Amino acid sequence: MSNGIITLITDFGGRDYYAGAIKAAILTLNPEARLVDISHEIPPGDIRHGSYILAQTCPRFPDGTIHLVVVDPGVGSGRRSIALRSDAGTYVGPDNGIFTPVFENYSVEVVVEIKEKEYYHEEVSPTFHGRDIFAPVAAHLSLGIISPRDLGPHVTDPVLLEYREPEIEEDFIRGEVIRCDRFGNVITNVPGAVVTRFLGGSEILLETGGGVVDRLAQTYASIEPGQLLALTGSSGLLEVSVNGGDAAMILGVQTGDTVVVRRK
Amino acid sequence: MSNGIITLITDFGGRDYYAGAIKAAILTLNPEARLVDISHEIPPGDIRHGSYILAQTCPRFPDGTIHLVVVDPGVGSGRRSIALRSDAGTYVGPDNGIFTPVFENYSVEVVVEIKEKEYYHEEVSPTFHGRDIFAPVAAHLSLGIISPRDLGPHVTDPVLLEYREPEIEEDFIRGEVIRCDRFGNVITNVPGAVVTRFLGGSEILLETGGGVVDRLAQTYASIEPGQLLALTGSSGLLEVSVNGGDAAMILGVQTGDTVVVRRK
Amino acid sequence: MSNGIITLITDFGGRDYYAGAIKAAILTLNPEARLVDISHEIPPGDIRHGSYILAQTCPRFPDGTIHLVVVDPGVGSGRRSIALRSDAGTYVGPDNGIFTPVFENYSVEVVVEIKEKEYYHEEVSPTFHGRDIFAPVAAHLSLGIISPRDLGPHVTDPVLLEYREPEIEEDFIRGEVIRCDRFGNVITNVPGAVVTRFLGGSEILLETGGGVVDRLAQTYASIEPGQLLALTGSSGLLEVSVNGGDAAMILGVQTGDTVVVRRK
Repeated sequence: MSNGIITLITDFGGRDYYAGAIKAAILTLNPEARLVDISHEIPPGDIRHGSYILAQTCPRFPDGTIHLVVVDPGVGSGRRSIALRSDAGTYVGPDNGIFTPVFENYSVEVVVEIKEKEYYHEEVSPTFHGRDIFAPVAAHLSLGIISPRDLGPHVTDPVLLEYREPEIEEDFIRGEVIRCDRFGNVITNVPGAVVTRFLGGSEILLETGGGVVDRLAQTYASIEPGQLLALTGSSGLLEVSVNGGDAAMILGVQTGDTVVVRRK
Repeated sequence: MSNGIITLITDFGGRDYYAGAIKAAILTLNPEARLVDISHEIPPGDIRHGSYILAQTCPRFPDGTIHLVVVDPGVGSGRRSIALRSDAGTYVGPDNGIFTPVFENYSVEVVVEIKEKEYYHEEVSPTFHGRDIFAPVAAHLSLGIISPRDLGPHVTDPVLLEYREPEIEEDFIRGEVIRCDRFGNVITNVPGAVVTRFLGGSEILLETGGGVVDRLAQTYASIEPGQLLALTGSSGLLEVSVNGGDAAMILGVQTGDTVVVRRK
Repeated sequence: MSNGIITLITDFGGRDYYAGAIKAAILTLNPEARLVDISHEIPPGDIRHGSYILAQTCPRFPDGTIHLVVVDPGVGSGRRSIALRSDAGTYVGPDNGIFTPVFENYSVEVVVEIKEKEYYHEEVSPTFHGRDIFAPVAAHLSLGIISPRDLGPHVTDPVLLEYREPEIEEDFIRGEVIRCDRFGNVITNVPGAVVTRFLGGSEILLETGGGVVDRLAQTYASIEPGQLLALTGSSGLLEVSVNGGDAAMILGVQTGDTVVVRRK
């Protein structure tokens, strides 16, 4: 079942010992595990950002991959620890909504609350379940000896994040910015296919932050340098970009800001 | 003896070629080596921070792991290059005190000065022993053909960092801040067990920076958001934290600042 | 031919999904591939910096290594996708000059334009060829079933960056700063061997930014702390450094600034 690959998504950054301690915990139980860093730079405690990165990466890994996801601001509170198996991989982490994209877009076979202490580290720090519960559980799963069902009782009501869906009206679509990436691309929650259908051949008029964008293109490089354009990005969502520039800075927008699309 | 795993702790950051060059040097000699990044974000030349990360991660790796540690501000000076084997793994790096936690907390079987040039890269840059001495030596050790004893003469006086121990008096404990982590947790040099014994059932009164903390809890999430609390962190040390906030910023403290614990 | 190692150089940073998506794309096609992160912190779109990191790392990897290089500001424009095999490894990425160091310093056996769509991901985003073209192609090459020749037609005119060569005159050498590294070392485009030959036993007088450096040494640590020195760095190039300090900050220099070397 397991292919031996364990991916890591955390908010631990690079200066602390937390990511290293998780790797040690996995390799101690399964020295053959193959660790793949997806990101340790999720902003601290930002479950929503973690779930966005998860959605765009984890389901693309080969069958049998285990995904360890530790963005866990509620560690040590009542929040449950869960493991789940789906047709987009096996996941281990806190039940705080970070797995919402898996529940919403894939077929989840089983979700359990992790309760069997024999799969924990022998001592469990109340502030670092990543190291002492999630990593050992992921390692045990990667050995192929146990399955999620062995870890504890079924969960029927996992925590789900509420995503704000874009409003699609006759005359406009109102969405929001979900991420300004490293290149300054402004990524919205509006699927590109929705925009195409809405425009139906008309040209675009997009307003966000301090700016108006009136060009829809295929690629960043298809217009003159320094010009704003809208496009469907590699996540399938509407983006606003500048060829060779930082659209987020130029427009003065940030995560959560409103984006309105009209026909010109 | 070697399990093929080589971990990396460096102060090289992500923008320069130094970490990549070290990986190339290892894999050229042992293409089967399994590299594990612990951190490349040790602040430049910060031996003390490097030793703190080492202490919290390396000993947790499986038996037979080799740890390559390159925080080496004295490269090319008279400082020795060393390799050591202990019951907490095998270590290769500069003799500048960074291995102090291994010497202080584990049983060290052998320490040698690396002098046998046959295990070096054929050309050695005087400014990059990480690439040209430490990485090749770690790779050779990982092949299981040589042991530290083959690398050079015994070292009987490795450099040790002086750690400031907390003062434990009748009426107070005076410690210091050793790290403000990515989450704003203020980590001190006072073991949590020492605090528990000192308090003996009384409540805590902790002063540091501009603040007073009078609650001791088990987890960040066990008090109201925004409130300060003291707890024993995942490294076993006393920490000051804020549920959902940045305690270091709120208190205005940084590494080296004093922390005083009293009974309320 | 392939040793299963695929290295990664990108400008994706750590907060976005791009690096993780590339890893997923590779492992889905070749779950046994061994990924090695060289850097994901190339400044966005900085082809020149990417080629500098490539030059100092990739050729040092063992024979049969595949290097995936994605610094691709022209993605989706007319720029070609290329793969090449050389005596310094196999490379896959955009034809934008980033592979210049391979063309200039090594023997390139074959260069092709990647055109065979059967080696692409089934859907290709016009803005993310790294995930949908380069990563799948690198994975296919790592399986050892195809060679670059199978990917498309020969390229005879790959894009090459123009490097500004240092001017070497009777009385002076005029070069430029190509990188100020994490430690503040000012790395120039002047080979150390050229400086040695030019000086011919005389002492050095180096001017750059707001300062004059009149000492040539072997190592950072060979002079008093806080003092400026010139040396040949681990890349074989002339550097200006400060023992224990940040030379770039002290001198107020940055990439592109002029460096003049004279005899004292």
